[in-house]
Amino acid sequence: MWQLYQYTLCPFSRKVRFALAEKAIPHELLRELPWDRRDEFTDMNPAGQTPVLAAPNNTTVLIDSSAICEYFEETVERTPLLGAGPIDRAETRRLVSWFDQKFYAEVGVLLLQERMYKRLVHRASPDATLLRQAGRNVEVHLDYIEYLLDHRRWLGGPTFGLADICAAAHISVADYLNGVDWTGHAEAKQWYSAIKSRPTFRPLLAERMEGLAPPAHYDKLDF
Amino acid sequence: MWQLYQYTLCPFSRKVRFALAEKAIPHELLRELPWDRRDEFTDMNPAGQTPVLAAPNNTTVLIDSSAICEYFEETVERTPLLGAGPIDRAETRRLVSWFDQKFYAEVGVLLLQERMYKRLVHRASPDATLLRQAGRNVEVHLDYIEYLLDHRRWLGGPTFGLADICAAAHISVADYLNGVDWTGHAEAKQWYSAIKSRPTFRPLLAERMEGLAPPAHYDKLDF
Repeated sequence: MWQLYQYTLCPFSRKVRFALAEKAIPHELLRELPWDRRDEFTDMNPAGQTPVLAAPNNTTVLIDSSAICEYFEETVERTPLLGAGPIDRAETRRLVSWFDQKFYAEVGVLLLQERMYKRLVHRASPDATLLRQAGRNVEVHLDYIEYLLDHRRWLGGPTFGLADICAAAHISVADYLNGVDWTGHAEAKQWYSAIKSRPTFRPLLAERMEGLAPPAHYDKLDF
Repeated sequence: MWQLYQYTLCPFSRKVRFALAEKAIPHELLRELPWDRRDEFTDMNPAGQTPVLAAPNNTTVLIDSSAICEYFEETVERTPLLGAGPIDRAETRRLVSWFDQKFYAEVGVLLLQERMYKRLVHRASPDATLLRQAGRNVEVHLDYIEYLLDHRRWLGGPTFGLADICAAAHISVADYLNGVDWTGHAEAKQWYSAIKSRPTFRPLLAERMEGLAPPAHYDKLDF
Protein backbone atom coordinates (compact mmCIF):
# COMPACT_ATOMS: atom_id res chain seq x y z
CA MET A 1 0.00 0.00 0.00
CA TRP A 2 1.12 3.59 -0.64
CA GLN A 3 2.34 5.52 2.39
CA LEU A 4 1.54 9.22 2.55
CA TYR A 5 3.82 11.44 4.62
CA GLN A 6 1.64 14.34 5.71
CA TYR A 7 0.24 16.31 8.61
CA THR A 8 -3.30 17.34 9.41
CA LEU A 9 -3.09 21.04 8.62
CA CYS A 10 -0.91 20.82 5.50
CA PRO A 11 -3.18 22.08 2.67
CA PHE A 12 -1.11 20.29 0.01
CA SER A 13 -1.44 17.00 1.92
CA ARG A 14 -5.20 17.57 2.18
CA LYS A 15 -5.39 18.09 -1.56
CA VAL A 16 -3.67 14.74 -2.18
CA ARG A 17 -5.70 12.91 0.48
CA PHE A 18 -8.98 14.23 -0.94
CA ALA A 19 -7.91 13.28 -4.49
CA LEU A 20 -6.74 9.80 -3.45
CA ALA A 21 -10.05 9.24 -1.65
CA GLU A 22 -12.05 10.34 -4.72
CA LYS A 23 -10.02 7.94 -6.88
CA ALA A 24 -10.28 5.19 -4.21
CA ILE A 25 -6.50 4.67 -3.97
CA PRO A 26 -5.72 2.77 -0.74
CA HIS A 27 -3.04 4.50 1.31
CA GLU A 28 -1.69 4.65 4.84
CA LEU A 29 -1.13 7.96 6.61
CA LEU A 30 2.20 8.73 8.28
CA ARG A 31 2.49 11.91 10.32
CA GLU A 32 5.40 14.09 9.22
CA LEU A 33 5.99 17.60 10.58
CA PRO A 34 8.27 19.30 8.01
CA TRP A 35 9.68 21.71 10.62
CA ASP A 36 11.19 18.74 12.49
CA ARG A 37 13.54 18.38 9.49
CA ARG A 38 13.84 14.63 10.05
CA ASP A 39 16.88 13.30 8.18
CA GLU A 40 15.13 10.29 6.65
CA PHE A 41 12.39 12.57 5.33
CA THR A 42 14.84 15.08 3.83
CA ASP A 43 16.62 12.15 2.15
CA MET A 44 13.33 11.25 0.48
CA ASN A 45 12.39 14.82 -0.42
CA PRO A 46 15.25 17.32 -0.45
CA ALA A 47 12.66 20.13 -0.61
CA GLY A 48 11.66 19.02 2.91
CA GLN A 49 7.95 19.50 2.22
CA THR A 50 4.86 17.39 2.66
CA PRO A 51 3.17 15.55 1.03
CA VAL A 52 5.34 12.66 -0.15
CA LEU A 53 3.76 9.43 -1.35
CA ALA A 54 5.95 6.33 -1.21
CA ALA A 55 5.40 2.78 -2.42
CA PRO A 56 6.51 -0.07 -0.08
CA ASN A 57 10.31 -0.01 0.45
CA ASN A 58 10.39 3.36 -1.33
CA THR A 59 10.55 1.64 -4.72
CA THR A 60 8.61 4.63 -6.03
CA VAL A 61 8.57 8.03 -4.31
CA LEU A 62 6.19 10.68 -5.59
CA ILE A 63 6.82 14.27 -4.50
CA ASP A 64 4.80 17.48 -4.95
CA SER A 65 1.03 17.52 -4.59
CA SER A 66 0.36 18.35 -8.24
CA ALA A 67 2.81 15.74 -9.53
CA ILE A 68 1.07 13.15 -7.29
CA CYS A 69 -2.40 14.11 -8.54
CA GLU A 70 -1.28 14.10 -12.19
CA TYR A 71 0.32 10.66 -11.68
CA PHE A 72 -2.97 9.12 -10.56
CA GLU A 73 -4.90 10.98 -13.26
CA GLU A 74 -2.62 9.29 -15.80
CA THR A 75 -2.55 5.83 -14.26
CA VAL A 76 -6.06 5.40 -12.81
CA GLU A 77 -8.84 5.92 -15.32
CA ARG A 78 -11.80 5.90 -12.94
CA THR A 79 -13.09 9.24 -11.65
CA PRO A 80 -11.19 11.66 -13.90
CA LEU A 81 -10.52 14.82 -11.92
CA LEU A 82 -8.89 17.17 -14.43
CA GLY A 83 -11.66 17.48 -17.03
CA ALA A 84 -12.62 15.98 -20.37
CA GLY A 85 -10.56 17.82 -22.99
CA PRO A 86 -7.23 19.70 -23.09
CA ILE A 87 -8.89 23.12 -22.63
CA ASP A 88 -10.93 21.95 -19.63
CA ARG A 89 -7.77 20.46 -18.20
CA ALA A 90 -5.85 23.71 -18.72
CA GLU A 91 -8.59 25.54 -16.84
CA THR A 92 -8.46 23.04 -13.97
CA ARG A 93 -4.66 23.39 -13.81
CA ARG A 94 -4.95 27.20 -13.82
CA LEU A 95 -7.24 27.06 -10.80
CA VAL A 96 -5.06 24.52 -9.01
CA SER A 97 -2.15 26.95 -9.41
CA TRP A 98 -4.40 29.78 -8.23
CA PHE A 99 -5.12 28.06 -4.92
CA ASP A 100 -1.74 26.36 -4.44
CA GLN A 101 0.17 29.56 -5.08
CA LYS A 102 -2.02 32.64 -4.77
CA PHE A 103 -4.40 31.54 -2.01
CA TYR A 104 -1.58 29.84 -0.13
CA ALA A 105 0.70 32.91 -0.31
CA GLU A 106 -2.04 35.41 0.48
CA VAL A 107 -3.96 33.45 3.12
CA GLY A 108 -2.73 29.97 4.02
CA VAL A 109 0.89 30.64 4.84
CA LEU A 110 -0.05 33.65 7.01
CA LEU A 111 -2.58 31.67 9.05
CA LEU A 112 -0.34 28.62 9.36
CA GLN A 113 2.58 30.76 10.47
CA GLU A 114 0.64 32.98 12.87
CA ARG A 115 -1.97 30.58 14.30
CA MET A 116 -0.31 27.16 14.07
CA TYR A 117 3.49 27.37 13.87
CA LYS A 118 3.91 30.25 16.33
CA ARG A 119 1.58 28.56 18.81
CA LEU A 120 2.80 24.97 18.59
CA VAL A 121 6.51 25.60 18.04
CA HIS A 122 7.31 29.02 19.50
CA ARG A 123 4.45 29.39 22.01
CA ALA A 124 4.21 32.97 20.72
CA SER A 125 1.23 35.23 19.99
CA PRO A 126 0.07 35.84 16.42
CA ASP A 127 0.70 39.15 14.65
CA ALA A 128 -2.73 40.85 14.48
CA THR A 129 -1.76 42.89 11.41
CA LEU A 130 -0.91 39.78 9.40
CA LEU A 131 -4.14 38.08 10.52
CA ARG A 132 -6.17 41.09 9.37
CA GLN A 133 -4.36 41.01 6.05
CA ALA A 134 -5.16 37.28 5.66
CA GLY A 135 -8.79 38.07 6.49
CA ARG A 136 -9.02 40.74 3.79
CA ASN A 137 -7.42 38.37 1.28
CA VAL A 138 -9.88 35.57 2.10
CA GLU A 139 -12.71 37.95 1.13
CA VAL A 140 -11.18 38.46 -2.32
CA HIS A 141 -10.84 34.71 -2.84
CA LEU A 142 -14.42 33.99 -1.72
CA ASP A 143 -15.59 36.68 -4.15
CA TYR A 144 -13.62 35.01 -6.93
CA ILE A 145 -15.09 31.61 -6.06
CA GLU A 146 -18.56 33.15 -6.30
CA TYR A 147 -17.70 34.75 -9.63
CA LEU A 148 -16.73 31.29 -10.94
CA LEU A 149 -19.89 29.71 -9.50
CA ASP A 150 -22.03 32.32 -11.28
CA HIS A 151 -20.92 30.70 -14.53
CA ARG A 152 -20.39 27.06 -13.55
CA ARG A 153 -21.75 24.23 -11.43
CA TRP A 154 -18.30 23.51 -9.92
CA LEU A 155 -15.15 25.65 -9.83
CA GLY A 156 -13.45 24.10 -12.86
CA GLY A 157 -16.54 23.47 -15.00
CA PRO A 158 -19.68 21.33 -15.11
CA THR A 159 -18.24 18.44 -13.08
CA PHE A 160 -16.56 18.15 -9.68
CA GLY A 161 -12.80 17.91 -9.99
CA LEU A 162 -9.32 18.86 -8.88
CA ALA A 163 -10.08 22.60 -8.83
CA ASP A 164 -12.73 21.93 -6.16
CA ILE A 165 -10.48 19.49 -4.31
CA CYS A 166 -7.60 21.95 -4.24
CA ALA A 167 -9.73 24.94 -3.24
CA ALA A 168 -11.44 22.93 -0.48
CA ALA A 169 -8.08 21.70 0.83
CA HIS A 170 -6.76 25.23 1.22
CA ILE A 171 -10.02 26.74 2.48
CA SER A 172 -10.55 23.98 5.04
CA VAL A 173 -7.16 24.68 6.59
CA ALA A 174 -7.91 28.42 6.72
CA ASP A 175 -11.32 27.60 8.23
CA TYR A 176 -9.75 25.31 10.86
CA LEU A 177 -7.51 28.23 11.84
CA ASN A 178 -10.59 30.44 12.16
CA GLY A 179 -9.51 32.55 9.20
CA VAL A 180 -12.70 32.46 7.12
CA ASP A 181 -15.64 34.76 7.74
CA TRP A 182 -18.46 33.17 5.72
CA THR A 183 -20.89 36.07 6.34
CA GLY A 184 -22.30 37.40 3.08
CA HIS A 185 -20.94 34.53 0.99
CA ALA A 186 -24.02 32.34 0.59
CA GLU A 187 -22.96 30.96 -2.79
CA ALA A 188 -19.45 29.99 -1.63
CA LYS A 189 -20.98 28.47 1.51
CA GLN A 190 -23.34 26.38 -0.58
CA TRP A 191 -20.43 25.07 -2.67
CA TYR A 192 -18.35 24.33 0.45
CA SER A 193 -21.31 22.65 2.17
CA ALA A 194 -21.59 20.28 -0.82
CA ILE A 195 -17.88 19.53 -0.45
CA LYS A 196 -18.21 18.96 3.29
CA SER A 197 -20.93 16.39 2.73
CA ARG A 198 -18.76 14.19 0.49
CA PRO A 199 -17.78 10.93 2.26
CA THR A 200 -14.29 11.35 0.77
CA PHE A 201 -13.81 14.67 2.58
CA ARG A 202 -15.43 13.96 5.95
CA PRO A 203 -12.46 12.06 7.45
CA LEU A 204 -10.33 15.20 6.97
CA LEU A 205 -12.87 17.32 8.84
CA ALA A 206 -12.95 14.83 11.72
CA GLU A 207 -9.21 15.14 12.41
CA ARG A 208 -7.71 17.47 14.99
CA MET A 209 -4.22 18.89 15.39
CA GLU A 210 -3.13 18.44 19.02
CA GLY A 211 -3.08 21.68 20.95
CA LEU A 212 -5.12 23.53 18.37
CA ALA A 213 -8.92 23.40 18.29
CA PRO A 214 -10.96 24.58 15.27
CA PRO A 215 -13.97 26.91 15.65
CA ALA A 216 -17.35 25.28 16.40
CA HIS A 217 -18.67 25.66 12.82
CA TYR A 218 -15.62 23.97 11.27
CA ASP A 219 -17.00 20.47 10.64
CA LYS A 220 -20.73 21.35 10.55
CA LEU A 221 -22.57 20.96 7.25
CA ASP A 222 -24.82 23.84 8.20
CA PHE A 223 -22.43 26.63 9.15
CA MET B 1 -1.32 32.44 -34.44
CA TRP B 2 -1.06 32.27 -30.67
CA GLN B 3 -0.22 35.50 -28.88
CA LEU B 4 1.99 35.30 -25.81
CA TYR B 5 1.73 38.07 -23.24
CA GLN B 6 5.11 38.19 -21.53
CA TYR B 7 8.14 40.27 -20.68
CA THR B 8 11.82 39.58 -21.16
CA LEU B 9 12.82 38.91 -17.56
CA CYS B 10 9.74 36.90 -16.49
CA PRO B 11 11.11 33.40 -15.75
CA PHE B 12 7.68 31.80 -16.23
CA SER B 13 7.35 33.45 -19.66
CA ARG B 14 10.84 32.20 -20.56
CA LYS B 15 9.83 28.68 -19.59
CA VAL B 16 6.82 28.84 -21.94
CA ARG B 17 8.79 30.48 -24.77
CA PHE B 18 11.53 27.85 -24.56
CA ALA B 19 8.96 25.03 -24.49
CA LEU B 20 6.97 26.49 -27.42
CA ALA B 21 10.20 26.84 -29.42
CA GLU B 22 11.18 23.21 -28.70
CA LYS B 23 7.74 22.07 -29.81
CA ALA B 24 7.85 24.43 -32.82
CA ILE B 25 4.56 26.15 -31.97
CA PRO B 26 4.32 29.45 -33.89
CA HIS B 27 3.51 32.38 -31.62
CA GLU B 28 3.72 36.15 -31.52
CA LEU B 29 5.22 37.97 -28.54
CA LEU B 30 3.34 40.82 -26.86
CA ARG B 31 5.11 42.77 -24.15
CA GLU B 32 3.13 42.89 -20.91
CA LEU B 33 4.53 44.35 -17.68
CA PRO B 34 2.34 42.88 -14.89
CA TRP B 35 3.07 45.81 -12.54
CA ASP B 36 1.31 48.16 -15.01
CA ARG B 37 -1.92 46.34 -14.02
CA ARG B 38 -3.45 47.01 -17.43
CA ASP B 39 -7.23 46.51 -17.25
CA GLU B 40 -7.51 44.44 -20.43
CA PHE B 41 -4.80 42.11 -19.15
CA THR B 42 -6.41 41.69 -15.72
CA ASP B 43 -9.68 40.89 -17.51
CA MET B 44 -7.88 38.06 -19.29
CA ASN B 45 -6.01 36.83 -16.23
CA PRO B 46 -7.43 37.92 -12.87
CA ALA B 47 -4.20 36.73 -11.21
CA GLY B 48 -2.51 39.57 -13.13
CA GLN B 49 0.54 37.44 -13.95
CA THR B 50 2.48 36.65 -17.10
CA PRO B 51 2.57 34.49 -19.16
CA VAL B 52 -0.83 34.29 -20.83
CA LEU B 53 -1.22 32.59 -24.20
CA ALA B 54 -4.24 33.63 -26.26
CA ALA B 55 -5.64 32.33 -29.54
CA PRO B 56 -6.84 34.96 -32.08
CA ASN B 57 -9.81 36.95 -30.72
CA ASN B 58 -9.19 35.32 -27.32
CA THR B 59 -11.26 32.30 -28.35
CA THR B 60 -8.93 30.28 -26.11
CA VAL B 61 -6.93 31.81 -23.27
CA LEU B 62 -4.34 29.65 -21.52
CA ILE B 63 -3.04 30.87 -18.16
CA ASP B 64 -0.22 29.65 -15.89
CA SER B 65 3.10 28.47 -17.30
CA SER B 66 2.64 24.85 -16.24
CA ALA B 67 -0.94 24.67 -17.54
CA ILE B 68 0.32 26.04 -20.88
CA CYS B 69 3.16 23.51 -21.11
CA GLU B 70 0.86 20.61 -20.16
CA TYR B 71 -1.65 21.75 -22.80
CA PHE B 72 0.92 21.47 -25.59
CA GLU B 73 2.29 18.23 -24.19
CA GLU B 74 -1.23 16.81 -24.51
CA THR B 75 -2.11 18.29 -27.90
CA VAL B 76 1.20 18.22 -29.81
CA GLU B 77 2.83 14.80 -29.97
CA ARG B 78 6.19 15.80 -31.43
CA THR B 79 9.07 16.45 -29.04
CA PRO B 80 7.59 15.13 -25.78
CA LEU B 81 9.03 17.17 -22.93
CA LEU B 82 7.67 15.50 -19.80
CA GLY B 83 9.14 12.02 -20.15
CA ALA B 84 8.15 8.57 -21.38
CA GLY B 85 6.18 6.98 -18.53
CA PRO B 86 4.10 8.18 -15.58
CA ILE B 87 7.01 7.92 -13.11
CA ASP B 88 9.37 9.89 -15.38
CA ARG B 89 6.63 12.45 -15.82
CA ALA B 90 6.11 12.70 -12.04
CA GLU B 91 9.85 13.33 -11.63
CA THR B 92 9.80 16.05 -14.30
CA ARG B 93 6.81 17.70 -12.62
CA ARG B 94 8.55 17.53 -9.22
CA LEU B 95 11.54 19.40 -10.65
CA VAL B 96 9.36 21.92 -12.46
CA SER B 97 7.72 22.70 -9.10
CA TRP B 98 11.17 22.85 -7.50
CA PHE B 99 12.31 25.62 -9.84
CA ASP B 100 8.97 27.40 -10.23
CA GLN B 101 8.39 27.56 -6.50
CA LYS B 102 11.57 26.94 -4.52
CA PHE B 103 14.16 28.53 -6.81
CA TYR B 104 11.80 31.41 -7.62
CA ALA B 105 11.02 32.11 -3.94
CA GLU B 106 14.62 31.73 -2.76
CA VAL B 107 16.42 33.41 -5.65
CA GLY B 108 14.34 34.76 -8.54
CA VAL B 109 11.87 36.94 -6.72
CA LEU B 110 14.64 38.52 -4.62
CA LEU B 111 16.75 39.40 -7.67
CA LEU B 112 13.77 40.61 -9.70
CA GLN B 113 12.57 42.77 -6.83
CA GLU B 114 15.95 44.18 -5.87
CA ARG B 115 17.73 44.48 -9.23
CA MET B 116 14.89 44.96 -11.73
CA TYR B 117 11.71 46.28 -10.13
CA LYS B 118 13.41 48.68 -7.71
CA ARG B 119 15.61 50.05 -10.47
CA LEU B 120 13.07 50.36 -13.28
CA VAL B 121 10.01 51.33 -11.26
CA HIS B 122 11.22 52.94 -8.05
CA ARG B 123 14.70 54.11 -9.13
CA ALA B 124 15.83 52.81 -5.73
CA SER B 125 18.95 50.92 -4.64
CA PRO B 126 18.86 47.18 -3.98
CA ASP B 127 19.00 45.77 -0.45
CA ALA B 128 22.49 44.24 -0.11
CA THR B 129 21.35 41.79 2.58
CA LEU B 130 18.66 40.33 0.33
CA LEU B 131 21.10 40.08 -2.58
CA ARG B 132 23.59 38.19 -0.39
CA GLN B 133 20.80 35.86 0.70
CA ALA B 134 19.87 35.22 -2.96
CA GLY B 135 23.56 34.53 -3.69
CA ARG B 136 23.79 31.94 -0.93
CA ASN B 137 20.60 30.29 -2.13
CA VAL B 138 21.87 30.09 -5.73
CA GLU B 139 24.81 28.06 -4.44
CA VAL B 140 22.48 25.49 -2.90
CA HIS B 141 20.52 25.19 -6.14
CA LEU B 142 23.65 24.80 -8.28
CA ASP B 143 24.81 22.08 -5.89
CA TYR B 144 21.47 20.33 -6.27
CA ILE B 145 21.68 20.57 -10.08
CA GLU B 146 25.13 18.96 -9.91
CA TYR B 147 23.79 16.23 -7.62
CA LEU B 148 21.13 15.46 -10.23
CA LEU B 149 23.69 15.53 -13.06
CA ASP B 150 25.87 13.02 -11.19
CA HIS B 151 23.10 10.51 -11.77
CA ARG B 152 21.58 11.64 -15.06
CA ARG B 153 22.38 13.07 -18.49
CA TRP B 154 19.74 15.82 -18.10
CA LEU B 155 17.98 17.14 -15.00
CA GLY B 156 14.82 15.07 -15.33
CA GLY B 157 16.38 11.88 -16.73
CA PRO B 158 18.14 10.54 -19.83
CA THR B 159 16.54 12.99 -22.27
CA PHE B 160 16.25 16.79 -22.44
CA GLY B 161 12.88 18.01 -21.22
CA LEU B 162 10.74 20.40 -19.23
CA ALA B 163 12.88 20.11 -16.08
CA ASP B 164 15.83 21.51 -18.07
CA ILE B 165 13.65 24.11 -19.75
CA CYS B 166 12.22 25.30 -16.45
CA ALA B 167 15.57 25.35 -14.64
CA ALA B 168 17.22 27.22 -17.52
CA ALA B 169 14.41 29.78 -17.63
CA HIS B 170 14.83 30.62 -13.95
CA ILE B 171 18.63 30.47 -13.95
CA SER B 172 18.94 32.63 -17.06
CA VAL B 173 16.92 35.40 -15.40
CA ALA B 174 19.08 35.18 -12.27
CA ASP B 175 22.18 35.22 -14.49
CA TYR B 176 20.91 38.27 -16.41
CA LEU B 177 20.55 40.03 -13.06
CA ASN B 178 24.15 39.07 -12.21
CA GLY B 179 22.96 36.77 -9.43
CA VAL B 180 24.83 33.60 -10.37
CA ASP B 181 28.48 32.98 -9.43
CA TRP B 182 29.48 30.03 -11.62
CA THR B 183 32.89 29.61 -9.94
CA GLY B 184 33.41 26.04 -8.76
CA HIS B 185 30.35 24.70 -10.59
CA ALA B 186 31.92 23.11 -13.67
CA GLU B 187 29.25 20.46 -14.04
CA ALA B 188 26.34 22.92 -13.81
CA LYS B 189 28.18 25.22 -16.26
CA GLN B 190 28.56 22.37 -18.74
CA TRP B 191 24.84 21.63 -18.54
CA TYR B 192 23.93 25.31 -18.93
CA SER B 193 26.38 25.73 -21.80
CA ALA B 194 24.59 22.90 -23.64
CA ILE B 195 21.30 24.73 -23.02
CA LYS B 196 22.74 28.04 -24.22
CA SER B 197 23.80 26.46 -27.51
CA ARG B 198 20.28 25.30 -28.38
CA PRO B 199 18.81 27.33 -31.28
CA THR B 200 15.50 27.35 -29.39
CA PHE B 201 17.08 29.18 -26.44
CA ARG B 202 19.41 31.62 -28.20
CA PRO B 203 16.69 34.20 -29.07
CA LEU B 204 15.97 34.57 -25.34
CA LEU B 205 19.63 35.27 -24.60
CA ALA B 206 19.78 37.90 -27.34
CA GLU B 207 17.02 40.01 -25.79
CA ARG B 208 17.62 42.95 -23.51
CA MET B 209 15.39 44.69 -20.97
CA GLU B 210 15.62 48.44 -21.52
CA GLY B 211 17.58 50.22 -18.82
CA LEU B 212 19.08 47.02 -17.48
CA ALA B 213 22.21 45.42 -19.00
CA PRO B 214 23.29 41.85 -18.20
CA PRO B 215 26.87 40.97 -17.22
CA ALA B 216 29.35 40.32 -20.07
CA HIS B 217 29.28 36.52 -19.67
CA TYR B 218 25.47 36.31 -19.86
CA ASP B 219 25.03 35.25 -23.50
CA LYS B 220 28.47 33.67 -24.05
CA LEU B 221 28.65 29.90 -24.60
CA ASP B 222 32.04 29.88 -22.91
CA PHE B 223 31.47 31.67 -19.60
